[in-house]
Amino acid sequence: MVMAGNTFGKIFKITTFGESHGPAVGVVVEGVPAGMPLREEDIQRELDRRRPGQSALTTQRRERDRVEILSGVFRGRTLGTPICMLVRNLDVDSRPYEKIKTKPRPGHADLTYWLKYGYVDYRGGGRSSARETIGRVAAGAVAKKLLAAHGVEILGHTVEAAGVAIDRQPTREEIRRNVEKNPVRCALPEKAELMMKAILQAAAEGDSTGGVVEVQAHGVPAGLGEPVFGKLDAEIAAAMMSIGSVKAVGIGEGEKMARLLGSEANDAFRIKDGKIVAETNRAGGILGGISTGMPIVVRLTVKPTPSISKPQRTVDWAKMEEAEIRLKGRFDPNICPRIVPVAEAMMALVLADQMIRAGKINPDRFG
Amino acid sequence: MVMAGNTFGKIFKITTFGESHGPAVGVVVEGVPAGMPLREEDIQRELDRRRPGQSALTTQRRERDRVEILSGVFRGRTLGTPICMLVRNLDVDSRPYEKIKTKPRPGHADLTYWLKYGYVDYRGGGRSSARETIGRVAAGAVAKKLLAAHGVEILGHTVEAAGVAIDRQPTREEIRRNVEKNPVRCALPEKAELMMKAILQAAAEGDSTGGVVEVQAHGVPAGLGEPVFGKLDAEIAAAMMSIGSVKAVGIGEGEKMARLLGSEANDAFRIKDGKIVAETNRAGGILGGISTGMPIVVRLTVKPTPSISKPQRTVDWAKMEEAEIRLKGRFDPNICPRIVPVAEAMMALVLADQMIRAGKINPDRFG
Amino acid sequence: MVMAGNTFGKIFKITTFGESHGPAVGVVVEGVPAGMPLREEDIQRELDRRRPGQSALTTQRRERDRVEILSGVFRGRTLGTPICMLVRNLDVDSRPYEKIKTKPRPGHADLTYWLKYGYVDYRGGGRSSARETIGRVAAGAVAKKLLAAHGVEILGHTVEAAGVAIDRQPTREEIRRNVEKNPVRCALPEKAELMMKAILQAAAEGDSTGGVVEVQAHGVPAGLGEPVFGKLDAEIAAAMMSIGSVKAVGIGEGEKMARLLGSEANDAFRIKDGKIVAETNRAGGILGGISTGMPIVVRLTVKPTPSISKPQRTVDWAKMEEAEIRLKGRFDPNICPRIVPVAEAMMALVLADQMIRAGKINPDRFG
Amino acid sequence: MVMAGNTFGKIFKITTFGESHGPAVGVVVEGVPAGMPLREEDIQRELDRRRPGQSALTTQRRERDRVEILSGVFRGRTLGTPICMLVRNLDVDSRPYEKIKTKPRPGHADLTYWLKYGYVDYRGGGRSSARETIGRVAAGAVAKKLLAAHGVEILGHTVEAAGVAIDRQPTREEIRRNVEKNPVRCALPEKAELMMKAILQAAAEGDSTGGVVEVQAHGVPAGLGEPVFGKLDAEIAAAMMSIGSVKAVGIGEGEKMARLLGSEANDAFRIKDGKIVAETNRAGGILGGISTGMPIVVRLTVKPTPSISKPQRTVDWAKMEEAEIRLKGRFDPNICPRIVPVAEAMMALVLADQMIRAGKINPDRFG
Repeated sequence: MVMAGNTFGKIFKITTFGESHGPAVGVVVEGVPAGMPLREEDIQRELDRRRPGQSALTTQRRERDRVEILSGVFRGRTLGTPICMLVRNLDVDSRPYEKIKTKPRPGHADLTYWLKYGYVDYRGGGRSSARETIGRVAAGAVAKKLLAAHGVEILGHTVEAAGVAIDRQPTREEIRRNVEKNPVRCALPEKAELMMKAILQAAAEGDSTGGVVEVQAHGVPAGLGEPVFGKLDAEIAAAMMSIGSVKAVGIGEGEKMARLLGSEANDAFRIKDGKIVAETNRAGGILGGISTGMPIVVRLTVKPTPSISKPQRTVDWAKMEEAEIRLKGRFDPNICPRIVPVAEAMMALVLADQMIRAGKINPDRFG
Repeated sequence: MVMAGNTFGKIFKITTFGESHGPAVGVVVEGVPAGMPLREEDIQRELDRRRPGQSALTTQRRERDRVEILSGVFRGRTLGTPICMLVRNLDVDSRPYEKIKTKPRPGHADLTYWLKYGYVDYRGGGRSSARETIGRVAAGAVAKKLLAAHGVEILGHTVEAAGVAIDRQPTREEIRRNVEKNPVRCALPEKAELMMKAILQAAAEGDSTGGVVEVQAHGVPAGLGEPVFGKLDAEIAAAMMSIGSVKAVGIGEGEKMARLLGSEANDAFRIKDGKIVAETNRAGGILGGISTGMPIVVRLTVKPTPSISKPQRTVDWAKMEEAEIRLKGRFDPNICPRIVPVAEAMMALVLADQMIRAGKINPDRFG
Repeated sequence: MVMAGNTFGKIFKITTFGESHGPAVGVVVEGVPAGMPLREEDIQRELDRRRPGQSALTTQRRERDRVEILSGVFRGRTLGTPICMLVRNLDVDSRPYEKIKTKPRPGHADLTYWLKYGYVDYRGGGRSSARETIGRVAAGAVAKKLLAAHGVEILGHTVEAAGVAIDRQPTREEIRRNVEKNPVRCALPEKAELMMKAILQAAAEGDSTGGVVEVQAHGVPAGLGEPVFGKLDAEIAAAMMSIGSVKAVGIGEGEKMARLLGSEANDAFRIKDGKIVAETNRAGGILGGISTGMPIVVRLTVKPTPSISKPQRTVDWAKMEEAEIRLKGRFDPNICPRIVPVAEAMMALVLADQMIRAGKINPDRFG
Repeated sequence: MVMAGNTFGKIFKITTFGESHGPAVGVVVEGVPAGMPLREEDIQRELDRRRPGQSALTTQRRERDRVEILSGVFRGRTLGTPICMLVRNLDVDSRPYEKIKTKPRPGHADLTYWLKYGYVDYRGGGRSSARETIGRVAAGAVAKKLLAAHGVEILGHTVEAAGVAIDRQPTREEIRRNVEKNPVRCALPEKAELMMKAILQAAAEGDSTGGVVEVQAHGVPAGLGEPVFGKLDAEIAAAMMSIGSVKAVGIGEGEKMARLLGSEANDAFRIKDGKIVAETNRAGGILGGISTGMPIVVRLTVKPTPSISKPQRTVDWAKMEEAEIRLKGRFDPNICPRIVPVAEAMMALVLADQMIRAGKINPDRFG
């Protein structure tokens, strides 16, 4: 059986590759316009946000995750040609996985990969490892650079974790200022502290927790999205749902829409500064699959980290008998803070691709 | 600006076409294996489920919506070649739209289409009309036929409408038996009645309501889905979010996952009848983007119908001034029951395509 | 087995459908910019050029081939949405095919379709019939309209038929003026006459002949083509080779390039009117897969029509024994003149798609 | 402007990356079935055939071109996941290119890349360099391995060079035995010698020559190819025309078809060993775009190497004035022998992809 889904996007298009404990992970990014300034630091900054081992909340695997740009950039500017970016896998102790290689971890992809491919790299989840997101984040950094040159800003933050939810929507400025200051990436510091406590409490009992991450995109021009199947929200939904551990995606008011009346849900139109705007933004910046010019808002439900230290019931597929599994080692008690940069990257990838498709890229913006 | 998103699927692939008040709407379906029995009745049955004018809950537009198969079928069997299916638009009174042609209806795609394309067919929403789903449902009927021959059954039902939610999960048999018996397509008759009342009450006040629709797929083989971007849940999310009025999509426990512990969320594995199964199905039949063999379960949040008879504030883009709009005529007070067959169709399309890609189609099943 | 190759193009994208003796043939065209004037006459004119029954050189099948535009056009202008165009099959006497339905015609696709699909519409070649090109020509007419608005002209002509080749390259003006004046579509009238005689002489002996068709595109801007696999010449080659009966494709000097020296083959660059031009055009307007701004020139080798009235040896696949076949009825003694409009259409489709991808479309040109 | 054409194939899909004088060139191969034995030696062997510096006929650039497999292979077998293969660029003296960086070399892509992208890596042709084919050949080696396991053999050879053509078709055995024994890769040793002389004679005068390369595929099952646009010959034509320097492609008898009669061109069918076969193979193994089961035969016309040491007229785009250019250094006097492994690779890529799409892959063949 073959794996055919490693590519995302239509013009601004990425292909990720690599297994958790293989030689390297990386990405090829196609469709980047020529002449855009790009340096390894631009990529490294985002990779460092994604990197584990930054706090008590993230796994202790020590990875330096240094990116190397192998193509597509010449003297600090993009060539318009494919950009291959590579990160070597350094910290690859695979011994913990030898013992459980025929015992699929519940909540993980071990079983389904084995059923589908028959032959698997069982070390650290292989291709299904979260290390695959290195490629996404590296490519997302390129997309963010392109978007920033066109006035688009992407902001992600944790809005709920371990049962603790924010009680008011933070301002754009609060998100910018606070998210990198606490390990849960919550824009409200007092809530961040409560989230952290709740996460660690569950972790102390050998358990894990989930939450909700929000991503916003500001400055998105009206007119992005390709009806009827390439709707902007459809592409965002696919992008977000393709992130491991994401189980639900909502646009704007999302699932709250089920309980609103039409008169409450519809955003009225107004004229402001000579432009048509929506008075409210319950639609999350998208109508009929096309951006309205209002901020794009999406929320992702993140399931609790499947790796827990509590014993779990599973099977041994070699012996075809039931078994117990106890996972040891390094895993995140709550994955929300690490989902934030990945979800931002996916949003950036969708928007960069749609911007190009809609003819909204202006190389003069590269300076 | 061009519209490039009219195609869905990779091998089993559909392209829909047509505007609400143009000559016709339809679909071309590619990738259907040769030799499969197919007649117009197979298609018509599903179109009749989608058709409005069936009860107080759906719009009064009288459309016969007779489908004609123009290609790809020879003497009652598919040829493996593209199947074009056409439905003529008959009931096309466009006068109500003349008056509001420069006043975008809130919650609709009028404004964004105009911003994107500059030149629009304003009659009945044009391409953004729900009539576009005729093509999806017709194609979905072909997909269902293919799936049924391989033991896969798709079931959709309304689980919440106008604030009334089901209080227990109906059995598969209840869904089969009850859904077509009430106008809200709810599998629990007593809840159906309450939903209906709540819907009509809001409608009486010139308002509309939303809800939640669930789609299940039974008999899906393990191994469908193409990591990492072509994950089965990512494709389902895109498919569902591409349906007008859908604002959130959740797989399995969906957004409830945010508040579970890892030990609660993980489905333990067991051996049953010599096969590996999951004891519970909180994952909704998908792990790591690949089907587990358990039922696929997805829930869609449907926003309240944007067309309401209450006056609404909008703009007149010709005059660039603020305006009021009062919509008259035929519209659904709650769109959930009509989303059901469309969502089933989208699920069928995703699964048929993934079945083919995964090499799971056996022409011997066609008899 | 499924047929997955009915779509051509990436943004300006067409999907053809229909069998020779089924209800209809047609095409869906996506990616046409909004606001472009388009009427059925624009399409019909090109279809009439393709239509058989125009002279002694083309088959006697009487087809009116009236096109109907079903979507994507509103009050004489395109909407940016998919354009479905339909032609009903009227003259569909399938009796001649009943007798030979298990005896594949040499040189035709009968055998391979049967091997691939198992279940075939044997009437008139079914999907492999030249009637499929109605969809191409209709879509090509849309592409030509788009190109013409941007100063691009496509010209096709027969340069060799039945062994008679032109002895000098006709001027652009000669092609424009003469091609539709003779049944072989040769731009040199005296050669046209010789070609005609040679074709009819072979036909009188129950045989058929081949030839060479050239297509030129003038006014193509520099910069079209997407290296390294989406090269403009690679896409043209695929486009042309996808036409039935085409067995070779050459760009510019084509196969003559094998015998030139580098110093002869390279086109020197010069400055002319402040622009860089190539002094000669042996490259046929393409370097490194990208258009130079010089005319695009491509030549197609057309095999002799496989349908001949001479008896031929074949097999009967029902009895698995050798057999003889004698074809009766209507067939073109030389297919070159009918390839001309089809090849022009394919060139137009490639260029329209590449123009859009390269951001070279300016809606202001639509007037 | 973006470059969007770096991907080839639909399921078995490759994306090449890298510039001639950048850090590395390489390829990501998707869609390889899991469980197939694969080692770096399998790749290296083919890369060594492609490598320059092997004789007087190829450039003197010394490159070791060591391939490294970075992903997709675990303990000597493929995982079904993307295979990234990398070759570092070592011998990258870019000084000769500094002097001519604003003077496009005639016959090269320098001018068109500059016109399209505006910002180029002028060193050694950058992305348009023949070094890009390293990725193709590496990926082709994987495809060949897959094909060999299914009984398909690909054979390439030079059939004409510098005006010297073979005078009889060599046997399959002769091609296998002789091609790697002479620097022109001709299967007829006596012709090889004449070709060599003619090539060197032109080279001595500072000029270059072209020729014709043939690729055959034996053991290809009937039924590959996806009508109507994904025809096997259309895909082969695109694949071959995407190779730099290829200016014409013919299938089977190719351009000779123009002068045959229908009764000569049609291959009669016969029964042989209980199977339907074609008595002759003028069609080159393809009818109606679908493989017949006979050998696939394709011929490519290769233009003379555009790099010659004779002075040539060009322009200086910085000064916008006419200029002369004299190229110094290493270049192939005839590119045919180096096209052979690249063309074989492209054939293998097309067939591997079509085999997978047609469901013809059997993992049991991997042993």
